[in-house]
Amino acid sequence: MGGKATMIWGFHPVAEAMRAGRRRLYAVFLAREKTDARVEPLVQMAERLGIAVQAVPAAKLTALVGHGRHQGVGARVSEYPLCTLEDILASAAADPMKPFILVLDQIVDPQNLGAIARTAHCAGIHGIVMPKNRSAPPSPAACKASAGALEHMAMAYVTNIANTLKGLKSRGVWIAGADHRAGGSVFETALSGPLAIVIGGEEKGIRPLVKKQCDFTLCIPQTGPIGSLNASAAAAIIMYEAFRQRRGRQ
Amino acid sequence: MGGKATMIWGFHPVAEAMRAGRRRLYAVFLAREKTDARVEPLVQMAERLGIAVQAVPAAKLTALVGHGRHQGVGARVSEYPLCTLEDILASAAADPMKPFILVLDQIVDPQNLGAIARTAHCAGIHGIVMPKNRSAPPSPAACKASAGALEHMAMAYVTNIANTLKGLKSRGVWIAGADHRAGGSVFETALSGPLAIVIGGEEKGIRPLVKKQCDFTLCIPQTGPIGSLNASAAAAIIMYEAFRQRRGRQ
Repeated sequence: MGGKATMIWGFHPVAEAMRAGRRRLYAVFLAREKTDARVEPLVQMAERLGIAVQAVPAAKLTALVGHGRHQGVGARVSEYPLCTLEDILASAAADPMKPFILVLDQIVDPQNLGAIARTAHCAGIHGIVMPKNRSAPPSPAACKASAGALEHMAMAYVTNIANTLKGLKSRGVWIAGADHRAGGSVFETALSGPLAIVIGGEEKGIRPLVKKQCDFTLCIPQTGPIGSLNASAAAAIIMYEAFRQRRGRQ
Repeated sequence: MGGKATMIWGFHPVAEAMRAGRRRLYAVFLAREKTDARVEPLVQMAERLGIAVQAVPAAKLTALVGHGRHQGVGARVSEYPLCTLEDILASAAADPMKPFILVLDQIVDPQNLGAIARTAHCAGIHGIVMPKNRSAPPSPAACKASAGALEHMAMAYVTNIANTLKGLKSRGVWIAGADHRAGGSVFETALSGPLAIVIGGEEKGIRPLVKKQCDFTLCIPQTGPIGSLNASAAAAIIMYEAFRQRRGRQ
């Protein structure tokens, strides 16, 4: 297997890493001081999978992960299993819901990445595509913020998002860009075909060269003077409106 | 006016406090080291409103607010202006969209409160009702997390949420509780009448005595093994599905 080992931490990330079965788990660490009802099923799952479980002082776990926000649970695992756009399209091919892809154009905050990945997982997104540059990596902190959903989500980091969108279009996927200054209400736009939703970065939204590749842009209608929804709420509303329409078509 | 003075901080909270005009602003503080294009319009707004603007060293601002996450902007203001349920119903009476209220049953994280309030403001919620006990207060941190939306939002803290819901029902408001184990899909439930949406706390959801007062419960359909959406994503999806239905009815 090779690759670098890393420490993930928190109940959900460790449990979902075991459940997803995509990473190799070298060891699960439990803080001795921790007595939580959620520990027992975790230990049973580890035993079933033949993974060593070590009880350690909480201070040792803190030293291993580099901070104290570990909830008394950690695991040494292989690197995050990235995939390619081809992998995502292959898994989408089997789904009657057609490709349903999320593109994050320079989301840099791991908390936002985690929150968005969690919602994406619930909404049935086949994979998340991000540019290699200026994107939050699928780090242990992002995994914690996703409540472990990142362990299940197909994640591809690409060199050039504009080119990627061009390629998707040539394969019949519609590209919808979220733009709070754009005209078309998400609630009045057909989103039930093969679809990639593009969400821009926290500060500047979608970059111009990326927006150029969008077939259409979407806005979320809003009342009141505040400028716009945050990236994670906007992504949730758009993904679930698409979900609603796609379910209606099944 | 009286009342305690408090420090709010960050661009959006200070700008929206001025724009909303609900709090008294005693002084605006700007860190001398800060040279941001957003400072100038802030100064102009303060001058128009006759509010003193003081340039101070960043370290002084850090001392005033108690930490360094102030973006070089702070203001000494009167206490957060709470309101009552009657105020919320009075403002809703003028709106053809009818009462559209959000009830948060023990949301304790100020970041969640802020994120939810921001989305609620965009979705046209007339007011947020929370129990006095075990709820995040409308603190400066929550205001920052809301990008200043809390400065505009009507917030009422009540003694007993179950009694409040009873009172709302007697006035013709439908009570919809979010429950990810419940049967009715939010996308297949009529939400266009006078409505209060109840969202439960981060860990345990809606408390049983509160759920008892709901006319019906809603779930958000989900794919995949992860248990449920986070409170803030769930609130966004439900509020905007109600928004979509209500707009369609106008």
